Amino acid sequence: MFSSKATEIGLAPGTLVHIGEQKIDRPELSIIDYDPTRFTRQDDVSVDDCLPFIDSPSVSWINLYGLHDIALIDRLGQAFGVDPLALEDILDTAHRPKFEEFDDYTLVILRMLSIDEEEDRIVSEQISFILGKGFVVSFQERHGDVFSGVRSRLQRKSGRICSRGSDYLVYALIDSVVDSYFHILETIGDHLTQLEQDLIDNPSQDCLKRIYTFKTELLQVRKAIWPLREVISEMRREESLHIDPTTQVFLRDLYDHTIQVVETVEIFRDTVSGLLDLYMSSASNRMNEVMKILTIMASIFIPLTFIAGVYGMNFEVMPELKWRFGYAGIWTVMITIFVGMVTYFKRKRWF
Amino acid sequence: MFSSKATEIGLAPGTLVHIGEQKIDRPELSIIDYDPTRFTRQDDVSVDDCLPFIDSPSVSWINLYGLHDIALIDRLGQAFGVDPLALEDILDTAHRPKFEEFDDYTLVILRMLSIDEEEDRIVSEQISFILGKGFVVSFQERHGDVFSGVRSRLQRKSGRICSRGSDYLVYALIDSVVDSYFHILETIGDHLTQLEQDLIDNPSQDCLKRIYTFKTELLQVRKAIWPLREVISEMRREESLHIDPTTQVFLRDLYDHTIQVVETVEIFRDTVSGLLDLYMSSASNRMNEVMKILTIMASIFIPLTFIAGVYGMNFEVMPELKWRFGYAGIWTVMITIFVGMVTYFKRKRWF
Amino acid sequence: MFSSKATEIGLAPGTLVHIGEQKIDRPELSIIDYDPTRFTRQDDVSVDDCLPFIDSPSVSWINLYGLHDIALIDRLGQAFGVDPLALEDILDTAHRPKFEEFDDYTLVILRMLSIDEEEDRIVSEQISFILGKGFVVSFQERHGDVFSGVRSRLQRKSGRICSRGSDYLVYALIDSVVDSYFHILETIGDHLTQLEQDLIDNPSQDCLKRIYTFKTELLQVRKAIWPLREVISEMRREESLHIDPTTQVFLRDLYDHTIQVVETVEIFRDTVSGLLDLYMSSASNRMNEVMKILTIMASIFIPLTFIAGVYGMNFEVMPELKWRFGYAGIWTVMITIFVGMVTYFKRKRWF
Amino acid sequence: MFSSKATEIGLAPGTLVHIGEQKIDRPELSIIDYDPTRFTRQDDVSVDDCLPFIDSPSVSWINLYGLHDIALIDRLGQAFGVDPLALEDILDTAHRPKFEEFDDYTLVILRMLSIDEEEDRIVSEQISFILGKGFVVSFQERHGDVFSGVRSRLQRKSGRICSRGSDYLVYALIDSVVDSYFHILETIGDHLTQLEQDLIDNPSQDCLKRIYTFKTELLQVRKAIWPLREVISEMRREESLHIDPTTQVFLRDLYDHTIQVVETVEIFRDTVSGLLDLYMSSASNRMNEVMKILTIMASIFIPLTFIAGVYGMNFEVMPELKWRFGYAGIWTVMITIFVGMVTYFKRKRWF
Amino acid sequence: MFSSKATEIGLAPGTLVHIGEQKIDRPELSIIDYDPTRFTRQDDVSVDDCLPFIDSPSVSWINLYGLHDIALIDRLGQAFGVDPLALEDILDTAHRPKFEEFDDYTLVILRMLSIDEEEDRIVSEQISFILGKGFVVSFQERHGDVFSGVRSRLQRKSGRICSRGSDYLVYALIDSVVDSYFHILETIGDHLTQLEQDLIDNPSQDCLKRIYTFKTELLQVRKAIWPLREVISEMRREESLHIDPTTQVFLRDLYDHTIQVVETVEIFRDTVSGLLDLYMSSASNRMNEVMKILTIMASIFIPLTFIAGVYGMNFEVMPELKWRFGYAGIWTVMITIFVGMVTYFKRKRWF
Repeated sequence: MFSSKATEIGLAPGTLVHIGEQKIDRPELSIIDYDPTRFTRQDDVSVDDCLPFIDSPSVSWINLYGLHDIALIDRLGQAFGVDPLALEDILDTAHRPKFEEFDDYTLVILRMLSIDEEEDRIVSEQISFILGKGFVVSFQERHGDVFSGVRSRLQRKSGRICSRGSDYLVYALIDSVVDSYFHILETIGDHLTQLEQDLIDNPSQDCLKRIYTFKTELLQVRKAIWPLREVISEMRREESLHIDPTTQVFLRDLYDHTIQVVETVEIFRDTVSGLLDLYMSSASNRMNEVMKILTIMASIFIPLTFIAGVYGMNFEVMPELKWRFGYAGIWTVMITIFVGMVTYFKRKRWF
Repeated sequence: MFSSKATEIGLAPGTLVHIGEQKIDRPELSIIDYDPTRFTRQDDVSVDDCLPFIDSPSVSWINLYGLHDIALIDRLGQAFGVDPLALEDILDTAHRPKFEEFDDYTLVILRMLSIDEEEDRIVSEQISFILGKGFVVSFQERHGDVFSGVRSRLQRKSGRICSRGSDYLVYALIDSVVDSYFHILETIGDHLTQLEQDLIDNPSQDCLKRIYTFKTELLQVRKAIWPLREVISEMRREESLHIDPTTQVFLRDLYDHTIQVVETVEIFRDTVSGLLDLYMSSASNRMNEVMKILTIMASIFIPLTFIAGVYGMNFEVMPELKWRFGYAGIWTVMITIFVGMVTYFKRKRWF
Repeated sequence: MFSSKATEIGLAPGTLVHIGEQKIDRPELSIIDYDPTRFTRQDDVSVDDCLPFIDSPSVSWINLYGLHDIALIDRLGQAFGVDPLALEDILDTAHRPKFEEFDDYTLVILRMLSIDEEEDRIVSEQISFILGKGFVVSFQERHGDVFSGVRSRLQRKSGRICSRGSDYLVYALIDSVVDSYFHILETIGDHLTQLEQDLIDNPSQDCLKRIYTFKTELLQVRKAIWPLREVISEMRREESLHIDPTTQVFLRDLYDHTIQVVETVEIFRDTVSGLLDLYMSSASNRMNEVMKILTIMASIFIPLTFIAGVYGMNFEVMPELKWRFGYAGIWTVMITIFVGMVTYFKRKRWF
Repeated sequence: MFSSKATEIGLAPGTLVHIGEQKIDRPELSIIDYDPTRFTRQDDVSVDDCLPFIDSPSVSWINLYGLHDIALIDRLGQAFGVDPLALEDILDTAHRPKFEEFDDYTLVILRMLSIDEEEDRIVSEQISFILGKGFVVSFQERHGDVFSGVRSRLQRKSGRICSRGSDYLVYALIDSVVDSYFHILETIGDHLTQLEQDLIDNPSQDCLKRIYTFKTELLQVRKAIWPLREVISEMRREESLHIDPTTQVFLRDLYDHTIQVVETVEIFRDTVSGLLDLYMSSASNRMNEVMKILTIMASIFIPLTFIAGVYGMNFEVMPELKWRFGYAGIWTVMITIFVGMVTYFKRKRWF
Repeated sequence: MFSSKATEIGLAPGTLVHIGEQKIDRPELSIIDYDPTRFTRQDDVSVDDCLPFIDSPSVSWINLYGLHDIALIDRLGQAFGVDPLALEDILDTAHRPKFEEFDDYTLVILRMLSIDEEEDRIVSEQISFILGKGFVVSFQERHGDVFSGVRSRLQRKSGRICSRGSDYLVYALIDSVVDSYFHILETIGDHLTQLEQDLIDNPSQDCLKRIYTFKTELLQVRKAIWPLREVISEMRREESLHIDPTTQVFLRDLYDHTIQVVETVEIFRDTVSGLLDLYMSSASNRMNEVMKILTIMASIFIPLTFIAGVYGMNFEVMPELKWRFGYAGIWTVMITIFVGMVTYFKRKRWF
């Protein structure tokens, strides 16, 4: 749930250490280079393959899957002139989303959420962008991302993306990440509706665990999404060195979407806490029902049993026992009591 | 409850996609054109019919019901010079209320709430305004709105509305939407009072579900209304290009009303949470009552049954059984115990 | 609890409509005119009677009880040059407390709280002030106010009030309203102390309803008082056109009092929620007591009844039944069990 | 808990009224006058005795115990040139802590807390300071304060206090008051630890009342301490007329201490609410234990009693009754059931 | 949990008093002196041994373990020109984390957290830094710290630390403290996961106490960490006299880490309160289960016992007793009832 930074107490700042688990076998570097007229894509390249693209006037997007190869990242950093301090943040996979401007580039760190279908839980992955003049370097923890739409727009040369600079590319990538949050939230929303229905139908102990799981997951999602507000807000506000004013217009929309995501998460949190109240109240209701059945049974039969007990006593002098209609009489008494009690509980609307 | 933006991960910004369900069969465009002396209304027109009105000195109000015909909206946008980014927001029917100024026009997005009498729940619809020089374009998801008062004032040429510009028209339309919130809140308030009465009379499981429904609906209403504060606040603060200072005066009143709506929603939320406490406490009280009855019955009759049981034993040597007043004596003992227990519970004020 | 503004969706702003119930039969206008040397009071006058006082150098205080006579208020507004927008706010008796400066006058809207002795609940009434040069017009919903102290100070020419302008008069009136809040809070405080005592003595269902009523009333009081902070804060901050710097000094004190009122309301809210916790815990405690009694009775007598039952069986071969001391022996066993159980529960400190 | 200002609705501002109960029989005035070389102390003096010290270059500290003698305070106010508005605040013993600068002096109002050992509750007393050029007048409600340390430092001429002006004296006095808060908090902390221990040992109804008392007292303490933050913050911020820049340095420390006090109160409030949760959970646990005992006893013996009842029936044809080992057999059955049930509950870990 | 400042009410500010318990036997002073080429370390030195290093161009780091020797600290303060007011704060071991700039040096106070393995609780220790030109003095309450990494980097002359000034050293030390918070949080996180598992497996009274302990500890951790945000924020913002702009870059990272720590603590607090809800709900569930067993047993056997009781009565006229299949018949009836009840509860899904 949080950083293992503990392992590096006292390490010099700027020391490159990969914090987090290794999620893929070997790192994989790919490069996309485009200008309004041209689109090149090379997968599984080396750092050296990237060098020619750095100073070209076209926009280069270098993407790295896998963060455990420190040497590779170090060389990549040197190639693009990235400070070790920035690389340190990129390698700390539990880092808080942030936006930081350096002289030659801008660092953006986000969290990408996805749903692990198998374990039915939300997994979170860090994604970092280095936005420089004419290039973007993106760092991901493992294969699989939400950028296929961006790649195909680049390839099809559709829309304004091809005619704009690297800042617009970063905007488009972040936009894809934020769009993917909507997908996650939609899934959570469906699950919540389902849970609510189950709660009303049959509020079991299992529901309780699901409520608790939702609560914990929403805390996690919130931690990932909340700082994004600041990130995008800073991107908009600052007279950025690497973000063009013409791109700022789009950031306003992005900011709106982020606010909407954050608000939806807060509403889900309220909903979950409402579900817990509903569960508790339902449980208390069911207890009441159980108690009523017990009380009805006990209140009716305990007095009757007492009466039967009385005439089961063996006293020598018990005149009623000799009466001709004693037995019939006692049945009358008992039935009267029975009917009386049932009427009493009916009037109390207990059943 | 939230956007289906998920379906468009990676779409280029400015791509027009209708997000939300289609609520009417075919879109319907109507136009009202007025100046202090003249009022024209044409229903079910085409985009081309609107064109002559754009540059006329009179104020034109073009209203569109139905957002699913992308082509139509695209043409409308081009006719009035509206940016695809603005149209994208208008088409995303789960968009957060917002106010955004462009060079040639201002975009305002609100949510209109109404009560679906049949299903007895609050439904929410997005309404957007494009405020330009001499024209207002409004986009609604379906037929039926709260603007009949405005239309009749325009037609009757009553009040200052006819002699003012398009900014005043937008103000009047937003004012109608905010007024309609009061109507919704009044209905919710009545329902809450009814629920409170029911809770005190007979706190059933059904009440619990109604409390929960209220809680969820108020969350939804709040989400729709809360951002309106900012929207109107921004309309007032900014040296707006399209809002005349003489209209600003009215916005102050509008702002007051919005605050009042927001505060009422918060009070309702507090009230609902108070009702839940009341329900829980009442349930706990009822449980107490049930337990008391059980305890009284059991505490009185179990000892008596025991006594009867004792004299139902078949020991050969049981001198009491032979006593002449044994039976009468045992009745005396049992009645004494009965009276004693009843007195004890009476003194404890259990009944 | 909130405005019936719903009835006027789409009405033109500035249209005069009385929103709220009519609380007295006919409106009543009175005028007090004073300067340091002179004091005139005329009750039940017409608007025309007021006109001569408007331009006089003395300070005129026109007070209106009853807001349902639109025509009267319209004429009053015209006489004092008050904008329809301001009058509209005054007539909306559910308006939020506000402070608004116009060119020729200042509008202040407050809520006056009083305790309806008969129904034992807090009633709230709107009071509005138009503060102009040399005059104050106050609008109340019905007879009865908290201004007798101010009137008598004016009549007795005591203190600085007579030698100061209309702004000081408005300050003195608002000060009286805020002072009256202390009275209300004192009453609520006494009731809370009483309720707390009752809760500790005998936590009944009735207490629960009283707690809930307090909660609702405090929400209402809070809604009325909370915006006052802003109102007085704005009165102090703004370089007001109609409030003299020498009066500003007094507003600081007024502000302090308002803060104190607001804080007390918050403390009362905390106290009420503490009382609810106390009630819930006490209820849970009582349930525990009930359960203990049941458990003690059942645990002691059910085993004994079983033993008695055993020796009530009719098997032919039951040697114990024939033993000479069988009966005495079984009593010994039962008394041992009884004493054992009592000791067990005593050691558990159950009674 | 709050002001009785209600008794003075409509009183002219600046009218001197003592609000609060009279706490000592007669007011007592004392004066301490010092400069770096000299220290004079006179107890039980009259206002006239103080006059010579006003214009002397030395620092004079006039202290008044008892606020009910309006005439005395009026004369004191006139002697030191204090505005009636300031005196009115001083006399309102429920006033909110405040800091207000006048032309010739500064008014500081604080609350002094102490523990009434007899009634074991926190009592709160108002203390006000008038800080002028070369003099400090302090107003206390009754005898007994926390200033003995300051007095002895003055008398011993120790530290820098003797060589500094009246602003440093006020700082030293406020510092003593804040230090005394730590003492109160330490006592509350000890009581809380004790209560926590008691709760874990034996969570009785008495604990509940103590929790509630703590909650109420902390509300009161918070009300007294919270505004102090602002007071000291204003003292630091304002370019004060009567506070020397060299004293400002010390105010920073004072501010730190105040923040620490406020934070501790908040932590105590959290702790108390945690204790309430602990109490509720413990109560629910105990209920569970009680229910388990009842259920075990009832579940074991009710079936056994039924079996005994069966063979207590008087049917003529009941073959088992005649069997030789019928009685032994039935005991076997009953013991088997008993062992079975005990095993079942053991396996459920109920005991 | 809070300061014992109470013991010094009225003490002159700047009086050196050690507040807190003495944690080691005798204070121990050590000095590390380094420049890019040289590293000297002397342990257990006297104040006089430190003097030569003060004005040397190299950076000197003087560390003191143990704060109870006032005289020693006084001399140390004089040697480095530290104000008594600053020393007073250092000696108050319950001081709030703070950052204060003096003319010749900067004071930073932090709290160092560690886990006392034996008692399994978090202990907190104050650490203060005096950052001057060319020297850093650190004050710790006892042996053992988190600075071994820094020391070894100095000794190995690795990284930029040796070539930078005293401000970078202070940054590196604070960075180590913040890193150590991650370690603490990781441990707490593991414990929370463990507790959650235990809660789901077997929610015992012991779990409740652990939840409460966590709640209290997190309050304490939060109190220690929360003010750190301000401290580092002030270090960054102020145009500091003693912090070089080149060090500011690193502070941004430090700030990010602090925010992350604070957020994690808040998430843990939410998690703990979620665990309490889970516990309460589970307890209520278990109670429900217990009640169901009781109700099933009682509802089945009480009616059967009643029937047996009826035929145990001794009336002379009881025809059923004489019937040939009376006994078999009654068994049929009883088994029918038994099966009916079991079916009823099965259909209610009670088992």
